[in-house]
Amino acid sequence: MATVHLLALCLAALPLGCASAPAPVSTTEVQALLDAQRAAWDQGDLEAFMAGYWRSPQLGFVGSTGLTTGFDETLARYRAAYPDAAARGTLTFELVRVTPLAGGRAAVAVGRWHLARAEPASGWFSIVLERRPEGLRIVHDHSS
Amino acid sequence: MATVHLLALCLAALPLGCASAPAPVSTTEVQALLDAQRAAWDQGDLEAFMAGYWRSPQLGFVGSTGLTTGFDETLARYRAAYPDAAARGTLTFELVRVTPLAGGRAAVAVGRWHLARAEPASGWFSIVLERRPEGLRIVHDHSS
Repeated sequence: MATVHLLALCLAALPLGCASAPAPVSTTEVQALLDAQRAAWDQGDLEAFMAGYWRSPQLGFVGSTGLTTGFDETLARYRAAYPDAAARGTLTFELVRVTPLAGGRAAVAVGRWHLARAEPASGWFSIVLERRPEGLRIVHDHSS
Repeated sequence: MATVHLLALCLAALPLGCASAPAPVSTTEVQALLDAQRAAWDQGDLEAFMAGYWRSPQLGFVGSTGLTTGFDETLARYRAAYPDAAARGTLTFELVRVTPLAGGRAAVAVGRWHLARAEPASGWFSIVLERRPEGLRIVHDHSS
C-alpha cells in the first residue's frame, strides 16, 4: 500500500513540477481588453486606458517616434500626444487575429485602430499579451 | 527498495511530464538570426533571407500596407517590393532589445532597420520569435 500511495502522490505531484498550463489566450479575452481600453479612451481617462498595459519599466511601445520603454514613459507619451478631447477623438479597434505563442501564456494580436476626429488617423497594431498574475496585459505594442 | 526505486523513477519522470523548459531566447541568438538575414539580403537572396521566418501559413507580417498572412505571401510581398538590387540596397539592423516571454520559448525583439540606397529608408521593427523544433524563427513581424 505504501508503494501505491507513493505512486499516487507522484502522479498527483506531476503537474506541480511543471510550469502551470493555463488556457491559451483567447480572442474573447483580447477583445474584452480592447473594449475596456476603448471605453476608457472615449471617456478621456488615459490612466484607465493604460490599465491594459503591463505596469512595468520593461513595457515596450513602438509608435511613430520609435521605441518608448516603461509604463510611466508610455503614459507620458500618450498624455503628450493626446492632450485634449479634440486630439483623442473617438477610438475604434478592429481585432483581426489572435495567435497564441509557445507555452500558452502569451499571444500576439493584430488589428486596426482608427481615431475619428477633425484629422482622422488610422493604422495597424501588433500587441504581445501575457497572462500575468494580475491578469492579461499588453507587454509590447507596435502601432503604426 | 521497490519504494525507493519508484520514488527515484517518479522524480526522474517529473520533467518529462512538463513542457520542456528551454533556455530563454537570448540576444546573441536573435543577433545571429538578423546577421544571417542581412547577409542573405545583401546577396539578393530573398529565399535565404526568409529562412529566419516561420515557414507557415500562420506567419504574420505587418508592414506599410497592413497585414500579410503566410510565409509564401510574405515572400511574394518582399519580391514585389524589392524587385532588384537598387530597390534592396544594403540592409542594416540595429538590435535594441530582446525580451523573453512567459514560458521562455518565445521573445519579442525590437530594433531599427535601415536600407542604404538612392532613396534611403529606415524604421523600427518588433519581431516575435519562437523556439521551434526546426530552430529559432520569427513568427510575427511588425515593421514601420
